[in-house]
Amino acid sequence: MKKEAMELPSFSSILLLLLCAFTLAEVESVYFPGIYQSSLKKNGKTVKPKIPYKSQYFPQVLDHFTFQPKSYKIFYQKYLINSQYWHKGAPIFVYTGNEGDIDWFAANTGFMLDIAPKFHALLVFIEHRFYGESMPFGKHSYRSAKTLGYLNSQQALADYAVLIRSLKHNLSSEASPVVVFGGSYGGMLAAWFRLKYPHIAIGALASSAPILQFDDITPWSSFYDAVSQDYKDASLNCYEVIKGSWAELNSISTNNEGLAEISRHFRACKQVHSINSARDWLWEAFVYTAMVNYPTEANFLMPLPAYPVEEMCKIIDGSSPQSTKLSRAFAAASLYYNYSQTEKCFKLEDETDEHGLSGWNWQACTEMVMPMVVTNESMFPPSSFSYKENAEGCKKQFGVAPRPHWITTEFGGTMIEQVLKRFGSNIIFSNGLQDPWSRGSVLKNISSSIVALVAEKGAHHTDLRSATRKDPDWLVNQRKQEVEIIQKWIADYIQDMKQE
Amino acid sequence: MKKEAMELPSFSSILLLLLCAFTLAEVESVYFPGIYQSSLKKNGKTVKPKIPYKSQYFPQVLDHFTFQPKSYKIFYQKYLINSQYWHKGAPIFVYTGNEGDIDWFAANTGFMLDIAPKFHALLVFIEHRFYGESMPFGKHSYRSAKTLGYLNSQQALADYAVLIRSLKHNLSSEASPVVVFGGSYGGMLAAWFRLKYPHIAIGALASSAPILQFDDITPWSSFYDAVSQDYKDASLNCYEVIKGSWAELNSISTNNEGLAEISRHFRACKQVHSINSARDWLWEAFVYTAMVNYPTEANFLMPLPAYPVEEMCKIIDGSSPQSTKLSRAFAAASLYYNYSQTEKCFKLEDETDEHGLSGWNWQACTEMVMPMVVTNESMFPPSSFSYKENAEGCKKQFGVAPRPHWITTEFGGTMIEQVLKRFGSNIIFSNGLQDPWSRGSVLKNISSSIVALVAEKGAHHTDLRSATRKDPDWLVNQRKQEVEIIQKWIADYIQDMKQE
Repeated sequence: MKKEAMELPSFSSILLLLLCAFTLAEVESVYFPGIYQSSLKKNGKTVKPKIPYKSQYFPQVLDHFTFQPKSYKIFYQKYLINSQYWHKGAPIFVYTGNEGDIDWFAANTGFMLDIAPKFHALLVFIEHRFYGESMPFGKHSYRSAKTLGYLNSQQALADYAVLIRSLKHNLSSEASPVVVFGGSYGGMLAAWFRLKYPHIAIGALASSAPILQFDDITPWSSFYDAVSQDYKDASLNCYEVIKGSWAELNSISTNNEGLAEISRHFRACKQVHSINSARDWLWEAFVYTAMVNYPTEANFLMPLPAYPVEEMCKIIDGSSPQSTKLSRAFAAASLYYNYSQTEKCFKLEDETDEHGLSGWNWQACTEMVMPMVVTNESMFPPSSFSYKENAEGCKKQFGVAPRPHWITTEFGGTMIEQVLKRFGSNIIFSNGLQDPWSRGSVLKNISSSIVALVAEKGAHHTDLRSATRKDPDWLVNQRKQEVEIIQKWIADYIQDMKQE
Repeated sequence: MKKEAMELPSFSSILLLLLCAFTLAEVESVYFPGIYQSSLKKNGKTVKPKIPYKSQYFPQVLDHFTFQPKSYKIFYQKYLINSQYWHKGAPIFVYTGNEGDIDWFAANTGFMLDIAPKFHALLVFIEHRFYGESMPFGKHSYRSAKTLGYLNSQQALADYAVLIRSLKHNLSSEASPVVVFGGSYGGMLAAWFRLKYPHIAIGALASSAPILQFDDITPWSSFYDAVSQDYKDASLNCYEVIKGSWAELNSISTNNEGLAEISRHFRACKQVHSINSARDWLWEAFVYTAMVNYPTEANFLMPLPAYPVEEMCKIIDGSSPQSTKLSRAFAAASLYYNYSQTEKCFKLEDETDEHGLSGWNWQACTEMVMPMVVTNESMFPPSSFSYKENAEGCKKQFGVAPRPHWITTEFGGTMIEQVLKRFGSNIIFSNGLQDPWSRGSVLKNISSSIVALVAEKGAHHTDLRSATRKDPDWLVNQRKQEVEIIQKWIADYIQDMKQE
């Protein structure tokens, strides 16, 4: 097997380099797949969704944790607000923004809008610093580690604390209970916010939040094993075809003739520069389709049918037995990239970044070190992880090395569940087992008020999406439980306030 | 009343200026008395106490909360360690160092050493960054806001987290329960550490920790009211004499003749440059004696007899009724400065800083904004507080303005007690009501595991001092309760571990 096939896709670093005009040397591979780090760069056809929020900009301090003169620099942090259901004193629901444009997360978190009338809730979606319009150094924000240095989760949590406190003060509604919501990395932030700022948020709904995906807490192979399991569950043949396709791809020559052949095969709009482009294109399609294996038609990462993994496997299983494994894998992946049937060809090396996700590469290279390996049992080519190599790659790319054990020092590592049991309260960890990230999340109740809501057929923060008429019962029920739990948090809070 | 009399003593800023060769403009007043910020600069006769600890130096990262290249700078953080009672797996008791040399705190926290054998505990005293030998920029550490910017409580807590985790790893004793201890600002750090890093410490003994001395949580007048109450409780006449002494002092001319007169009166070794020096000298003596109004002879800030406030008042009450109030106040204050009878004259403007406390002025001018006023009811000259004036003074002195509401945003403000009740566990807030800082601490049980141990006759972290044969029953009992509570925390922890 060639060396390249031993590495996880390198798209993320390339993406960042292209987008941000980085002057640092490119590295071949970053080993950490970001949560949504790159899927959305291809097929740039998304229409900006209309969302019922007003954009506001909060003067935020650059560095909450030092008092150097330059830490006082102010940048404008975007947040979205909807007060149509709210009255003073009623709850405030805050989405703790993650690694992309806040409008995109707001458009895909319809659950908060759906339940707002019941709670008379104010809705606030706060954009994460260094994403979307919330750029501390404007267009120079991604220039180097000197500017990017301020992009991290602790600063983001402090931003949320400061903004929420100021907002409540300005609304003269200091006593309003605040509940934080988040999905994926945003869910991690919501859970951590409840842990670190319990005086600001009375509870957190952390959907698909892989807070255990650090250090040795979760087996490093679990992510790709889970992806593979999704395909295996749909059809053993499907899994085997995909598993066998990589060797066929690797057998194609890397000379110009081979590149031309693969470009034709993959219907590339332009001839690719590397066989890896095709590999990454396939790899992404399979990983992201597993993540968004929603029970209804949806358009989060891409427009897709209900249960797209099953649909992909139907394509593979229904293909002619004469066709190669690679061509069958390609046909399946085409569902991901072209379900809407609008693409005449595929931009395999297109690096647009519609939702502004590229900052994740920096986070993955500093604090968000989530070791992952691919074993022989998986349907992907095997790959290993080494802290040392990872550090070298990051150092080369950004000029600084990761602090791979910092997140578990700051937020809790192997002990986190025991700690939550004795110390925490009011967190819902919701997960769908179709989602490979669920393996790094909390899947069992920890205490009476730190609960896991696990949906076997759910995918990546399915529960946060707007309700549709086609939603299956388990999803309706999962959301109903969430509403009931949040109602209890608020009732407890009101009770506590009365006793004062 | 002259303008100067309206301000709280300005010694802290002067101290810092002299000690640290600051090039910034001096300001007339910093309104926040640091917890021990200046008392110890006079009468520099303390002998370094012998303590049974080995000094170690931990390579610590400069900035935990940014990933700029320079945040990776390593400095050597001092910690003291004693393993004579310890065996692997047994508890680790950590003192979360506060604003001074760690040896000094270790010498005055004999309680930990006293109880170590019972627990087979490892003892660790970690020095706070920017104090003692733990200077990130060596002798340039206090040069300006650019270097001092890294001196704050969040960075200190992160230092403790990183150091403890590393220490446990190196000792192969990851499962050892850690209990944190601290007095005064160190007690605030211990309580906050338990709140923010519950995965690292199973409990905290926060002695005389004024975590409620911020924003509007505690009445701004409470500190000086409490000092006054101590003297009033000792003798109403004593309180009235001190209260009346300031006007007599103010009536002395500020010209050279007046300065000569006051210097003679106060037995100054050198003629003073300002009447304020005499005022501050008195003020300090009364405040710090109230703080260390211990039930036994002790030498924390100064060598003093048991219940020194009563001793001071005996001096005042026993003075000739013909003598002026000022001369009686001077005689009382002399007890504080010269109980050991070694001083032939007093260094009223001496600014030595034996215990390395001066960094507190920076902290008080950035995050540790504890508003205080002196009302007419107090025995001190009335004084007001203004956020605006304070900001101007700090800006002038350090080049940066305070963030006066940051501590309550980060650690909890008016809601902190409700939050602790629902969210926290395993904190002892121990206090002595003689100590004016007790008014800003937690004086009532919050829950079954967040308890207040309040000793009416106790002073500033009396409980942390070494046991002596003369200790009163209430003190013996307070320490006994602390040991029992800590034993329960450890037993619960062991129980939890077994269930895993």
